[in-house]
Amino acid sequence: MKIAVLPGDGIGTEIVAEAVKVLNALDLKFEMETAPVGGAAYEAAGHPLPESTLKLAQEADAILFGAVGDWKYDRLDRPLRPEQAILGLRKAMGLFANFRPAICYEQLTHASSLKPELVAGLDILIIRELTGDIYFGQPRGRRIATDGHFPGAEEAFDTMRYSRPEIERIAHVAFQAAQKRSKRVTSVDKANVLETFQLWKDVMTEVGQQYPDVALDHMYVDNAAMQLVKEPKKFDVLVTGNMFGDILSDEASMLTGSIGMLPSASLNSKGQGLYEPSHGSAPDIAGKGIANPLATILSAAMMLRFSLQQPEAADRIENAVKAVLAQGLRTGDIYSEGTTKVNTVQMGDAVVKAL
Amino acid sequence: MKIAVLPGDGIGTEIVAEAVKVLNALDLKFEMETAPVGGAAYEAAGHPLPESTLKLAQEADAILFGAVGDWKYDRLDRPLRPEQAILGLRKAMGLFANFRPAICYEQLTHASSLKPELVAGLDILIIRELTGDIYFGQPRGRRIATDGHFPGAEEAFDTMRYSRPEIERIAHVAFQAAQKRSKRVTSVDKANVLETFQLWKDVMTEVGQQYPDVALDHMYVDNAAMQLVKEPKKFDVLVTGNMFGDILSDEASMLTGSIGMLPSASLNSKGQGLYEPSHGSAPDIAGKGIANPLATILSAAMMLRFSLQQPEAADRIENAVKAVLAQGLRTGDIYSEGTTKVNTVQMGDAVVKAL
Ligand SMILES: CC(C)[C@H](C(=O)O)[C@@H](O)C(=O)O
Ligand SMILES: CC(C)[C@H](C(=O)O)[C@@H](O)C(=O)O
Repeated sequence: MKIAVLPGDGIGTEIVAEAVKVLNALDLKFEMETAPVGGAAYEAAGHPLPESTLKLAQEADAILFGAVGDWKYDRLDRPLRPEQAILGLRKAMGLFANFRPAICYEQLTHASSLKPELVAGLDILIIRELTGDIYFGQPRGRRIATDGHFPGAEEAFDTMRYSRPEIERIAHVAFQAAQKRSKRVTSVDKANVLETFQLWKDVMTEVGQQYPDVALDHMYVDNAAMQLVKEPKKFDVLVTGNMFGDILSDEASMLTGSIGMLPSASLNSKGQGLYEPSHGSAPDIAGKGIANPLATILSAAMMLRFSLQQPEAADRIENAVKAVLAQGLRTGDIYSEGTTKVNTVQMGDAVVKAL
Repeated sequence: MKIAVLPGDGIGTEIVAEAVKVLNALDLKFEMETAPVGGAAYEAAGHPLPESTLKLAQEADAILFGAVGDWKYDRLDRPLRPEQAILGLRKAMGLFANFRPAICYEQLTHASSLKPELVAGLDILIIRELTGDIYFGQPRGRRIATDGHFPGAEEAFDTMRYSRPEIERIAHVAFQAAQKRSKRVTSVDKANVLETFQLWKDVMTEVGQQYPDVALDHMYVDNAAMQLVKEPKKFDVLVTGNMFGDILSDEASMLTGSIGMLPSASLNSKGQGLYEPSHGSAPDIAGKGIANPLATILSAAMMLRFSLQQPEAADRIENAVKAVLAQGLRTGDIYSEGTTKVNTVQMGDAVVKAL
């Protein structure tokens, strides 16, 4: 089992180190190899996703990813910015199915901005299509407008697109995930305005007929953004496109109040996956040793389950995380009175001990 | 002063009737003319935006709009669906500047899903560009893909686009609105992924230099969706494109817990405006006489201020609304123990009495 370890920027190195420590504490044999990505790779090799890093990732069974990005790279040309590394990996490896759970841990309910009764026990699985939509659609660029409101003016443009098989494969992922949960899928679209999402809605409905045990409903994206705030527990599996998924998955993860706890997985059709925390590189706290490593540790658990066929090891890690929470250990982001504040390394050590 | 009154569908007729009653109770001379729109117009004239309704709207100084839409029209061809009326009016009249305040009324703070301290005193102004972006961009449609993941497959596509002058004019609207408020603008984009929003960000920065008294910051749309949940009071004026504005303005209005209280205005460069509540047609409660008319009454106040140059009359209406809330009168959507539940007509009457 080969794991490509890509720590990246900001707190990336610190949190990935703890996840590696936890993986090493299992009685399993992994081959792990580390490579730079994002701003770190730009500094080391002049490109956010060097050939050698991409090759390592492609040859691995799974990628453990930290985070990329720092304000200091904001002025680079777009193709050299850290984000291009993650977009490049998704595209080159065909990582089309992004799983982002939004779970509210019992002990952390109070940390949500929402009233506790609205989020206690919250457990939503957002499935975001990750290689299509306006993220990668061509043509895109700048040109002189020949029609529209201001013909003759400079304009910029992008293309939103989805093909039927792209929608079908993410639909199957969503329905199959729902079969293992409460058998409900909400497909989020904007079919009242966009051609792309009229096709999305049509195909979701068609594929849904192959899953008579799963209830499918459709919701407009603006309404979904509202219902997530109003009554998040109404959702179970939410499936949507790349752009809407970017927005709604972040909104949903913030609802839990503890985004520092939320893992994610991005899978391709061969079972390879990229595993990363839902939060970003947090350059403001990088190097201080105070970041919460639990989202990354839980991402390693997802990796064991989805790409490495080690469900028991995944369970062990998840139970160990629950145990440290029950012991009252907290990093600063989830700290509250009456609990014990620990730093990044101490949290990793505690998980290892609880294994 | 000519007002086109377009009640539309669902609760539209009921709430607009109360706003008209309030306007009539002012000592001002209006010419008001009513026309069907949305599903009602489809039933009456075979089209959601009949020529005669559009003509009336174009010749008026302002449009008082209720709401459109009903599930029963879901199966019509897209050009005949009720939403096309509102999209058609925006486009035909060039209503590019959409103002959507998200205000949390003191007496209604408890109604929010968020903890009271996070929303008490909340007052955000969302400015959404309303005639550009992927809503109207051409080309769009279905075709056979010639490239991408599945060449040869059926695909659907849309075009996102903004020209420099389109961004400039909405930027000026936002900076000028901020000058009358706390002098801060947050421009929301996705410049890290989209060409369209890289231009958006560049132009916002350029126009911002003409307003040295206003502080401008930029935020990615996914982060904005999070920050609205986490700390909504950090925002003052938020300006964004049509698609992101659709999502974020709905999210923000739901944060207040009382979307039944929120008005909106959509203006063109001639000062004509369309005024409508932020909520929809609510077919589930239509005909029961229980809808909250206050968002529509407050939309009429915005109309008096923005299109009819009657700021005192606008103030009178807004103060009357505050007075009825202070009297403890509530429609069902904002009712809580200890207050007095009233219906749509009673609420309208109470506002008239308080004028
Ligand atoms: C960094 C950025 C390009 C990326 C995205 O928009 O997909 C991020 O927001 C995410 O959700 O992983
Ligand atoms: C009805 C629909 C087309 C419309 C939109 O997406 O603009 C609505 O959601 C709105 O925000 O006014």
